[in-house]
Amino acid sequence: MPADAPRTKLEGTRALGAAVVTYDRAIDDREAIGREIAGRTGAVLIRPYDDALIVAGQGTLGLELADQAARLGAELDATLVCCGGGGLVAGCALALTHLIRGIAVHAVEPLGFDDTTRSLAVGRRLGNVPGSRSLCDALLAPMPGELTFAVNSRLLAGGLVVTDDEVTRAMRLAFRHLKLVVEPGGAVALAAALSGRFPARDRTVGIVLSGGNVDADLFARVLAEDPSQPPDP
Amino acid sequence: MPADAPRTKLEGTRALGAAVVTYDRAIDDREAIGREIAGRTGAVLIRPYDDALIVAGQGTLGLELADQAARLGAELDATLVCCGGGGLVAGCALALTHLIRGIAVHAVEPLGFDDTTRSLAVGRRLGNVPGSRSLCDALLAPMPGELTFAVNSRLLAGGLVVTDDEVTRAMRLAFRHLKLVVEPGGAVALAAALSGRFPARDRTVGIVLSGGNVDADLFARVLAEDPSQPPDP
Repeated sequence: MPADAPRTKLEGTRALGAAVVTYDRAIDDREAIGREIAGRTGAVLIRPYDDALIVAGQGTLGLELADQAARLGAELDATLVCCGGGGLVAGCALALTHLIRGIAVHAVEPLGFDDTTRSLAVGRRLGNVPGSRSLCDALLAPMPGELTFAVNSRLLAGGLVVTDDEVTRAMRLAFRHLKLVVEPGGAVALAAALSGRFPARDRTVGIVLSGGNVDADLFARVLAEDPSQPPDP
Repeated sequence: MPADAPRTKLEGTRALGAAVVTYDRAIDDREAIGREIAGRTGAVLIRPYDDALIVAGQGTLGLELADQAARLGAELDATLVCCGGGGLVAGCALALTHLIRGIAVHAVEPLGFDDTTRSLAVGRRLGNVPGSRSLCDALLAPMPGELTFAVNSRLLAGGLVVTDDEVTRAMRLAFRHLKLVVEPGGAVALAAALSGRFPARDRTVGIVLSGGNVDADLFARVLAEDPSQPPDP
């Protein structure tokens, strides 16, 4: 796990019994670390997105979304899904485009980590520019997965990009009106709709809010509209 | 609405089109203010808890809870419900004791506003001691309602009382593990279970979390474990 992952995610994972190995996002190669551990211990490596079973599991969110929309009598024109390596949006796109004719599924990414959006535009996998920063710690994968991009390039209507300011505004709206705690990376799809980057007016749009691993101090700063302030030592 | 109601509740109500009249909890008589407005304007007075239709409406929470428990295959031994004037717990008790044989429904109140707990113990309506304070702004009714106490004295298994510290601990747990924004008064039932004031071990217990009207500055202070600090001017 990146050493700068939310403490709540680190502590929560340890509390579930895991041995967590941390690394530095900027200089370490997590793929190599994972291979080394698996080789040394005989552990099975489960990739976080570039794995057919992971994509299929994440696709159950798309099945639930289609089911909930049907119960509400809502005919979805589009659905917006947060995107890091692209597994969740690939799974959702597989489910939703299968079940709902004509639905447009969009990946939403944070500014500086718009690899899927740019890759979709040119039809091949492009990486992010090194050195970018974003509040959305869960969406910082370096480039689209092979498997996920093969699915997404076939099924997605395109990508959308949101700024950290748009993300924190969405987090505040979720706090105030939905009474939900959403982490930055989990709020990008809502941010795309609220900011107008996705034109939602007069359309029926599904929005995925996924992930609540946000530390209390960051959440408090987001509520105070000052997410840039460093945490107390 | 009390002048010290959460700003999010005041602003949210105004945004829905209401004209909000504020009063001072310590010195004004809200019943008199309501009667005066109704008499002058011809408006219909809807009491917040001492009204059969309000109790019935709140009782739909009990119906939903029983339905959700049945779907989970959970056989409820008890259910804990937040209590101010007693309408929500009366409605829930009507629904739950009708549907689930032997269930024990408890009212949960904040320290200093335990009028229902004490009234249940002696079998007649007692008021709160004036001058008490609590974070649980939604649960500060002066004494049990006539109608609600008639129901609650017949159907409840008793009352439980929690401190503000226990309430804020429950709010932090809801933030961290449930990813829910719960106002202080909405977290008292969870607080009763977590604090051990209700012995939940080896029992199947329904817990009602109701109400998310909490201002961002108070929520941030609760997350920082310093709810007593006054808000910034």
